[in-house]
Amino acid sequence: MTETYETETYEFFSEARSEAVVNARMGADVSTRLAQVMASLVKHLHAFAKDVELTQEEWGLAVDFLTRTGQMSDGNRQEFILLSDVLGLSMLVDAINHRRPSGATENTVLGPFHVAGAPHYPMGSNISLDGKGESCLFIGQVRDTDGSPIAGVQIDVWCDNADGYYDVQQPGIQPQWNNRGIFVTGPDGHYEFRGIRPVAYPIPDDGPVGQMLAALHRHPNRPAHMHFLVSAPGFETIVTHTFVAGDQWLNSDAVFGVKTSLIASIETGTDTAWRSHFDFVMTRKTA
Amino acid sequence: MTETYETETYEFFSEARSEAVVNARMGADVSTRLAQVMASLVKHLHAFAKDVELTQEEWGLAVDFLTRTGQMSDGNRQEFILLSDVLGLSMLVDAINHRRPSGATENTVLGPFHVAGAPHYPMGSNISLDGKGESCLFIGQVRDTDGSPIAGVQIDVWCDNADGYYDVQQPGIQPQWNNRGIFVTGPDGHYEFRGIRPVAYPIPDDGPVGQMLAALHRHPNRPAHMHFLVSAPGFETIVTHTFVAGDQWLNSDAVFGVKTSLIASIETGTDTAWRSHFDFVMTRKTA
Repeated sequence: MTETYETETYEFFSEARSEAVVNARMGADVSTRLAQVMASLVKHLHAFAKDVELTQEEWGLAVDFLTRTGQMSDGNRQEFILLSDVLGLSMLVDAINHRRPSGATENTVLGPFHVAGAPHYPMGSNISLDGKGESCLFIGQVRDTDGSPIAGVQIDVWCDNADGYYDVQQPGIQPQWNNRGIFVTGPDGHYEFRGIRPVAYPIPDDGPVGQMLAALHRHPNRPAHMHFLVSAPGFETIVTHTFVAGDQWLNSDAVFGVKTSLIASIETGTDTAWRSHFDFVMTRKTA
Repeated sequence: MTETYETETYEFFSEARSEAVVNARMGADVSTRLAQVMASLVKHLHAFAKDVELTQEEWGLAVDFLTRTGQMSDGNRQEFILLSDVLGLSMLVDAINHRRPSGATENTVLGPFHVAGAPHYPMGSNISLDGKGESCLFIGQVRDTDGSPIAGVQIDVWCDNADGYYDVQQPGIQPQWNNRGIFVTGPDGHYEFRGIRPVAYPIPDDGPVGQMLAALHRHPNRPAHMHFLVSAPGFETIVTHTFVAGDQWLNSDAVFGVKTSLIASIETGTDTAWRSHFDFVMTRKTA
């Protein structure tokens, strides 16, 4: 309904016109991208409230939940990233931004536990420094999409220890750089290193996100995995995990990280208890 | 694509199936309402990310913004409510939950400045305690939808002072209960009280929400208004504002509170500088 007020004709906020009224308020000279993102955000936020006919009480619970999520966060804990993760938003944004041709290694999220500056090791070295866990050889090759090996690929790896914690979660308990290391491929594109068979672990569930998972009757567990950050000049960087085949949480990863192509077979090793083989396929950067 | 893994058939997360995969994770025995709200939230959240093809950088900015919004909040400041307000969500939820027949007084949000327990005054009293501002008589009648006056209606009012601040924003500067009071109607449903002509003021804009408004080239101002909380046994409580006709921000209230029916004419008074007339129409509670 058009309202006439003084010399102006103005349409005030109403349930029916809520999205249009709010978005019309943006300045005409706001950057195109910001205007696009905010208009879509308002559109979907209002559509959500209308679809479910959100009650005042539910709105109040949401305000409280989001406030506590912000206040749970600090330098060592990012509860909003955790929220994004368990709602599948992190993996969705990752997927949108890393569409790759068939055959190329699929991406996943970096996660909160990567630390830059891990030690560089020669191929074959053991990254497990705490003596815990079942030994495992990680082995494979890095190739381009034509099947040619790539030299000079930096492979940065990290995983939890046998108790299910990363070194940065247990400073003073685990040795620094436990289960982390960086390897560089030679002309054959081959890599191998020793570590432990990764173990499943729960994401931190003592905050608002854990309460939400409990209310939704969802468990907080991630299937066992090894993180890889694979980079080489001229190629798109791959951020991914390999998942241990047969893990009980493969089909219900709390953060939706698993993709079929990233499940690595695990078999009995020779000088290690286990052996995990996985080849990486990198795509060239487009100019 | 259906993935076969070991003895199970499971469809992993993918861009195309993101909403379905996340929502399928909820327990089957989650309450119907919670399942409905969360499924819709995930649907709209994912649709938003897909519509705009949200980048990793934008996602990071959003995580940071939401974190700071939570951390800006404390017992005296609720930045997430402010965010909800400027996105039109607060007024939308209010509208959804207070649909009323034509002719009944429209609702608005309570806002952050209501305080329970204001002094009870006899009709005609002056609620302005700091001696500032232009005096104004607020006057009118409370009726039911058939036009009959309602007795025993409690009218709880509050507004900012002439400097644009509520008493609770300036403890020690303004007298407690400045520009607040509670009045009760007699058999004629009539009310009147003295106070000041309300003045426009900006919402707090020194936090993340203020930064967002600036990025969107939006001002933080609210048009001048008087808050009313009107309640009586057997009737739906009215939470509303009346807005001062002619205010420069009427068409651009930062929180979208203005409705045509809530704009109160203001005219020259007799024993006060100004006179603002507004009648309230209450709807009976349904059994």
